[in-house]
Amino acid sequence: MNFKIKGKEGNARVGELHLQRGIIHTPAFMPVGTAATVKGMLPENVRSLGADIILCNTYHLMLRPGESIIQQIGGLHKFMNWSRPILTDSGGFQVMSLAALSKRSDDGVEFKSHIDGKKHFLTPEYSIQIQQTLGSDIIMCFDECTSFKATEREVYQSMMRSMEWAFRSKNAFQNTLSSTLFGIQQGGVFHDAREESAKRLIEIDFEGYAVGGLAVGEPQDIMFDVLDNSIPHFPDNKPRYLMGVGKPGDILGAVLRGVDMFDCVLPSRSGRTGQALTRMGTINIRNARHAKDPRPLDPKCGCPTCKNYSRAYLHHVCKVGEIISAILLTWHNLHYYQELMSGIRSAIFDSKLSDFAGQFISMQKKGDMPPL
Amino acid sequence: MNFKIKGKEGNARVGELHLQRGIIHTPAFMPVGTAATVKGMLPENVRSLGADIILCNTYHLMLRPGESIIQQIGGLHKFMNWSRPILTDSGGFQVMSLAALSKRSDDGVEFKSHIDGKKHFLTPEYSIQIQQTLGSDIIMCFDECTSFKATEREVYQSMMRSMEWAFRSKNAFQNTLSSTLFGIQQGGVFHDAREESAKRLIEIDFEGYAVGGLAVGEPQDIMFDVLDNSIPHFPDNKPRYLMGVGKPGDILGAVLRGVDMFDCVLPSRSGRTGQALTRMGTINIRNARHAKDPRPLDPKCGCPTCKNYSRAYLHHVCKVGEIISAILLTWHNLHYYQELMSGIRSAIFDSKLSDFAGQFISMQKKGDMPPL
Repeated sequence: MNFKIKGKEGNARVGELHLQRGIIHTPAFMPVGTAATVKGMLPENVRSLGADIILCNTYHLMLRPGESIIQQIGGLHKFMNWSRPILTDSGGFQVMSLAALSKRSDDGVEFKSHIDGKKHFLTPEYSIQIQQTLGSDIIMCFDECTSFKATEREVYQSMMRSMEWAFRSKNAFQNTLSSTLFGIQQGGVFHDAREESAKRLIEIDFEGYAVGGLAVGEPQDIMFDVLDNSIPHFPDNKPRYLMGVGKPGDILGAVLRGVDMFDCVLPSRSGRTGQALTRMGTINIRNARHAKDPRPLDPKCGCPTCKNYSRAYLHHVCKVGEIISAILLTWHNLHYYQELMSGIRSAIFDSKLSDFAGQFISMQKKGDMPPL
Repeated sequence: MNFKIKGKEGNARVGELHLQRGIIHTPAFMPVGTAATVKGMLPENVRSLGADIILCNTYHLMLRPGESIIQQIGGLHKFMNWSRPILTDSGGFQVMSLAALSKRSDDGVEFKSHIDGKKHFLTPEYSIQIQQTLGSDIIMCFDECTSFKATEREVYQSMMRSMEWAFRSKNAFQNTLSSTLFGIQQGGVFHDAREESAKRLIEIDFEGYAVGGLAVGEPQDIMFDVLDNSIPHFPDNKPRYLMGVGKPGDILGAVLRGVDMFDCVLPSRSGRTGQALTRMGTINIRNARHAKDPRPLDPKCGCPTCKNYSRAYLHHVCKVGEIISAILLTWHNLHYYQELMSGIRSAIFDSKLSDFAGQFISMQKKGDMPPL
């Protein structure tokens, strides 16, 4: 892995992350392909929108279909027909949020599958092994996530456990030509814990550093405050990844604070529930005001949905519950995210990111076009 | 409209139906786009499989979103982003099968919407008006469908009502450059009623003739028997359309009896329930035998699904309930249907349809590849 910074403006950076399976242009948004599919999309269409990398979930894939089946079929890339880089998370977040009855110890997490109730035991070593069996390009350390409501003492102890697990993850990781390992900072909203976590990760030494434990319900200003106090602890020459973030405004604010990589289910999940994310804010296509509107979601958008379909059509297929509604809205949303990232990259390169951010905020505030 | 027969073998014909929006190569299969979308497919992908025409449902569209909204957006073609011919049915079949509490009279059918219980009254004149408001290319007469279990007397009386409605449909139809009107034969499984119906339709004079009232649960041999006794009554130089049929073997048998056009929800509906239709019969992808199978559905199939995805992947995404499962299986199924039709057309052209039919039957009997 090789990370080249091509331009800077303030704390924001534009760069290229070179992996064996392709180049990732940063700041980058990674569409989420939970169970080996970006929901509602064909992989060639995800790529055509400009996505350089997608994220898949270790927790979901270890349960169904199981990593050994994916390995037998030739690895995750072949299995899901995506030849470019894939980042896998470690499963740490999902065992906390999805699994029933998880039991944690310093060794790892015992949990029951949310699908069939079967018991599993996930450790740093096993998580890394699963991710390597899948053939992931960017592998994440196994970590423990703490609730936004945990006390400082609980957060600190949990962070220290995650740092021990980061060390064990690094030891378990087998170097290969195509894969690389990222560490994950924890520490909740507490600056001392974040700083301690960053120091320990840097000591262990990773190819990239993620900020974990955010986007768990905290307000945006708290998230930005944590970033202001976290990012400066990481080395300049390594990529920084803010996990599970977020809304377009969150992403822009995080880029301004020096973050290079993002993932979030928002564009695809919103697409399945009738929400279109646009320059003009969020449009709820189920709203009756769109029923007779011949205009596209966004007349200035160049995505296949906006070029070919009216709001009236999208309103209709969404209300009727047709699959094409999820397809077309997800397509638009992922296009919007990739355009946003591409706009951010150009703006940093041209040292115009603050203008870009100003325009972004004023457009979002202005809101949707008035009804016809 | 202009129908040219390019070749014949026995009763089977290969031809071209020229409409203003495009040429339909017959025998043709029309994918069903009930509510202005072929479920699970983008229109450009339906076209790329070789579909020259699709079918939409008047009943569904009059209820949601309503024909006037579609007209305001620029007509059904623009609304759903399909520029080639569209055939609309008359709503007669759906008011019988879907609507609650339908009340029939010689004038028309009063029914309650299956969606919101609202009352509607559909007449021949109103059905034709809706279809013309939608901008349909092939418009179907409004008819009454009788159950497979109706007595001969009931079937005859219902057929006579349908013939009166065919006459009224023709009178209500406004000639335009782009649209044409087909009559629908009724008469159940009774040869005299079928003959009488054909004679009356020919007297009224239509551009094409449909066989209605089949594919309502009768065995294949009865359907073929009705066709043997119905098709000869229709003029050679007009297209013949067997409504709602069917399974691949039904289609082949009907082509051998002189039918030119077909529609059926089977390939798309099967795609959404994990069924793949192949040269080797039907494959239930949910079956555990496919869980680790690296082979495509059909190694000789050239569709995007078979070129890029294993049975193991399809099994996984189907079991997990991912949208891509419906997309990929529907894509395969519609491809298989269009390939079948294209094979049938070539075979008739080369006078090899009986060989083709023999091979088709032996392959279907042989069944799926053995497990690995």
